[in-house]
Amino acid sequence: MKILLIGATGTLGSEVATALEKSGHEIVRASRRGPVRVDMDDHASIDALFETVHDLDAVVCCAASGSLTRLDSDDDITAGLQGKLLGQIHLLRRAMRHLRDGGSVTLTGGVFDRLIPGASFTAVVNTGLEAFVEAAAIEMPRDLRVNIVSPGWVAETLASMGPEVRKSLDLEGTRGTLAADVARAYVEAVEGGAQGQAFRP
Amino acid sequence: MKILLIGATGTLGSEVATALEKSGHEIVRASRRGPVRVDMDDHASIDALFETVHDLDAVVCCAASGSLTRLDSDDDITAGLQGKLLGQIHLLRRAMRHLRDGGSVTLTGGVFDRLIPGASFTAVVNTGLEAFVEAAAIEMPRDLRVNIVSPGWVAETLASMGPEVRKSLDLEGTRGTLAADVARAYVEAVEGGAQGQAFRP
Repeated sequence: MKILLIGATGTLGSEVATALEKSGHEIVRASRRGPVRVDMDDHASIDALFETVHDLDAVVCCAASGSLTRLDSDDDITAGLQGKLLGQIHLLRRAMRHLRDGGSVTLTGGVFDRLIPGASFTAVVNTGLEAFVEAAAIEMPRDLRVNIVSPGWVAETLASMGPEVRKSLDLEGTRGTLAADVARAYVEAVEGGAQGQAFRP
Repeated sequence: MKILLIGATGTLGSEVATALEKSGHEIVRASRRGPVRVDMDDHASIDALFETVHDLDAVVCCAASGSLTRLDSDDDITAGLQGKLLGQIHLLRRAMRHLRDGGSVTLTGGVFDRLIPGASFTAVVNTGLEAFVEAAAIEMPRDLRVNIVSPGWVAETLASMGPEVRKSLDLEGTRGTLAADVARAYVEAVEGGAQGQAFRP
């Protein structure tokens, strides 16, 4: 298959690229920098991407990050709204027009194993994306499929935080899942027959 | 209790006002028109509202509407984003600063009993709001509480659609719940001890 992978340079995206290539697929790597550019916060850049990349069998989006914001702060709470939530919704709508028959879109959400202060808007984004994918599935034309991978903490991300940040988030006992193990869920979403499903590796 | 009710003139809001008054509460009715004004799409108007209404024990928001937009259309899909989702999140953040100790906020979501084409963004808003309330509950100071009422189809709303619209939405067999019955869930959320809960009347 010819697969467009967005966020290909990230911790998770690079493992997903490796796993998909091992399965014999051709990967077009898109990211904010590099030869094939897209910024999930900038929906026009998503439109432009589909004008330059053609004949796709699958689109996989691993571009997703989050931040914690307390409700009682004065800070903007809507991190992830424009890119992770609305950007991925826009990506699906555009991919629906450009994918080959029977193609698939795989988005990225996330899940916390317990409630954390500051994560209320992240919960909106992640839970909203899973509900979106389930509802969007019934509107897919031409045997297209849409699914989402909702990872918990990725081990490499936890490691990069350092002990102090992990302690502040009460994550000292959390090991997380290796990015390479999370990546297998993306391969399953692309190669299998899942429709409207949330994978929780 | 002194209760601020937003969306007090709507089908559901007017029944919630009646039910809360029957329980002996003092209701400050806010809506887009009328003496106490607020527009949930305009977050500055929410800030202004709390500058004029004081000494509140509870805030109830019934201002919520939706629309159906197909993914394959060119139309904006984000109905409900600014007001129902972000507006109610902003409302909770402001209410947290102005409510009396032990006060409560009750938001409005919604739920479909089955998937409907065109409802994918509505699913984001409604599911996102329930996840938000669950996550926000652990950040409540001063014994404040936050809950959400997620009604299905309201009988009066279905009746006002007319037979042709109901048929187009495959809702001919759906009776819905009377607004007065849905209103009881709001009274329970305000008067009871629920925290972070989604009521599905």
